[in-house]
Amino acid sequence: MGADPLEPDSLGQVETQTARIFTTDAPLTLASGANLGPIDVAYETYGSLNADRSNAVFICHALTGDAHAAGWHPADKRAGWWDNLIGPGKPLDTNRFYVICANILGGCLGTTGPSSIDPATGISYGLSFPLLTVADLVEVHRGLVRHLEIPRLLAVLGGSLGGMQALDWALRYPSELATAVVIAASSRLTAQNIAFSAVARRAIMDDPDFADGNYAANQTTPDIGLAIARMMAHITYLSEDALTEKFGRDPHPASDTPGFGIDFAVESYLDHQGHVFTERFDALSYLYLSRVMDYFDPFADPSVLDAVRANPVKFLVMSFDTDWRFSTEHSRRIANQLERAEQPVTFREITSPWGHDSFLLPLPSYHDTLRAYFDRALSEVTR
Amino acid sequence: MGADPLEPDSLGQVETQTARIFTTDAPLTLASGANLGPIDVAYETYGSLNADRSNAVFICHALTGDAHAAGWHPADKRAGWWDNLIGPGKPLDTNRFYVICANILGGCLGTTGPSSIDPATGISYGLSFPLLTVADLVEVHRGLVRHLEIPRLLAVLGGSLGGMQALDWALRYPSELATAVVIAASSRLTAQNIAFSAVARRAIMDDPDFADGNYAANQTTPDIGLAIARMMAHITYLSEDALTEKFGRDPHPASDTPGFGIDFAVESYLDHQGHVFTERFDALSYLYLSRVMDYFDPFADPSVLDAVRANPVKFLVMSFDTDWRFSTEHSRRIANQLERAEQPVTFREITSPWGHDSFLLPLPSYHDTLRAYFDRALSEVTR
Repeated sequence: MGADPLEPDSLGQVETQTARIFTTDAPLTLASGANLGPIDVAYETYGSLNADRSNAVFICHALTGDAHAAGWHPADKRAGWWDNLIGPGKPLDTNRFYVICANILGGCLGTTGPSSIDPATGISYGLSFPLLTVADLVEVHRGLVRHLEIPRLLAVLGGSLGGMQALDWALRYPSELATAVVIAASSRLTAQNIAFSAVARRAIMDDPDFADGNYAANQTTPDIGLAIARMMAHITYLSEDALTEKFGRDPHPASDTPGFGIDFAVESYLDHQGHVFTERFDALSYLYLSRVMDYFDPFADPSVLDAVRANPVKFLVMSFDTDWRFSTEHSRRIANQLERAEQPVTFREITSPWGHDSFLLPLPSYHDTLRAYFDRALSEVTR
Repeated sequence: MGADPLEPDSLGQVETQTARIFTTDAPLTLASGANLGPIDVAYETYGSLNADRSNAVFICHALTGDAHAAGWHPADKRAGWWDNLIGPGKPLDTNRFYVICANILGGCLGTTGPSSIDPATGISYGLSFPLLTVADLVEVHRGLVRHLEIPRLLAVLGGSLGGMQALDWALRYPSELATAVVIAASSRLTAQNIAFSAVARRAIMDDPDFADGNYAANQTTPDIGLAIARMMAHITYLSEDALTEKFGRDPHPASDTPGFGIDFAVESYLDHQGHVFTERFDALSYLYLSRVMDYFDPFADPSVLDAVRANPVKFLVMSFDTDWRFSTEHSRRIANQLERAEQPVTFREITSPWGHDSFLLPLPSYHDTLRAYFDRALSEVTR
């Protein structure tokens, strides 16, 4: 804890743990009515729980994230995905906060998902895995919080799909958290949002190696489709100006003769992103979790607001002005809905050239806002 | 010609003709230095050439268009792709103008392209077809105009890749046309533009049925990849608001149980667009012609403006305010470059909710602008 807060490895080495949150005998009943168990959850924690267990912050990750939000694993080439936010002296200061991050239900990085073994058959679930909702992801997080014996969270926060989980958790169980931080998220995807995910899913499912979802038994992986899905997604993660700034029309240095391969630098970037993604992510998880986002629409039922009306939560809703995957309009809608339910909402649109990816970056005005917000939240529960 | 101009079939039936513009012995020397011949060109004409052959308007089509711009073929379920613009009493009034439209070089709808038979081998060119540029497409159009014995065109016009051809033609051969109409086009694709096409090409080339471009010999077609390319492209052809307006989050009526198929109306739309595209378009043409767009950058060489400085052309440059494939910035850049070279440029940004697709639609302010422009152009050459 005495490490220099300016060092990128100030948090040091961390370990992923696994907990069985639901079992075959005591399964989770999903929003669809289906039962699912066992459910194992991979998670990491950083910092220490204080004496009255009031300093816990739960991080919800986005579509393709994992539990490894900060610090280093032995084989890491770079730190956890939100290491710039979490650590000693950082906005989520691990000298003061106890931070938890868990791989989400339906994922493929330690938590039960469609590529896990179905105990009923001894083979991967594949497409027999039940459809999920954001609420189901939250139920598993809640189970982990019970497992960790934390009576109430100081904050739940996340970006993109992570923000949807934070919002859903706060709406349905407001007594379980003091504040919710909803970043670059949406409460209702647009037709364009759904369209991009639809094409991504099509690329995966039409890959012959998808084998109707039984690719594990088939000993194949639909890498071609998954790479195409990821390449397309990366176009939407950056603003048009950011792509121009990073790549412009620069030729790819290794491009010899023009053709249909990698002639431009931006093509090399997409190719790299597609390739590395297939090495760490599962195609079925991509299907399930992208569909979770498509269907998320909590405010469609006005009664969803009854719980927070009775038990207000402090909300921080943030967007980035060049984010075109979930533009500021999405965040403003969330803030407006919450304000109509008389919630204390702070809304911030952050100026950033980097589009949707901004929520992962250490932008000063963004991090300063989060730092001040968490400091105040902690002072309010500990005063 | 006496048909009611309000009738959609006012132009009546038209026929596609084919002309051999270059031969094996007299091939076209491409911008790359490669020779290509024979080159057959499919074209249609509407209206009649006047006595002094001064009323000819050449239509350049976009990436996936064809020579059938207007009127009806016997088996048509709908009229040619720009039938709302071309016909008796329409903005391009075939009672007064002689309109020509030709399938572009590299295409697959009657004009020589990569799926054509290479006379040297007796099988399809495949990836041995030479790389093309916009200038090469224009050279073939010029050959057709010579074949039709038209000394000078009244106008060349086109949208998207068609607008690029009109711009290129005017810049390099300004004495061959009085006016150029450049609609929803670009003189320099952005990294994001290239990125979308890169993913589309990847989907095509990684489809196992692509067979390294020899799919004709392989008796396969890379329909999966081509459909994905088309689905993604259609997202970029409509504005986000237009997709919301058309589809919103409406469920697909035939969707029974939620899953990973077609649950939302927008998914049905994309599925349909992908499917019908594979029935009429060739994957190799998609590769070649999308790459033509990536590399188009005429103003990179300032000397390109020497010809029009000596021989000004009247330019009409138009954009649509919700077009995010080629935003107004692309058109404004074209207009600015031309103005710097002292060309008479009219620039119009048209208000339309429909994004890039707007250039194909009968929007009143758009058609009124074109009608007035063509009327004036004709009066200036015939006075």
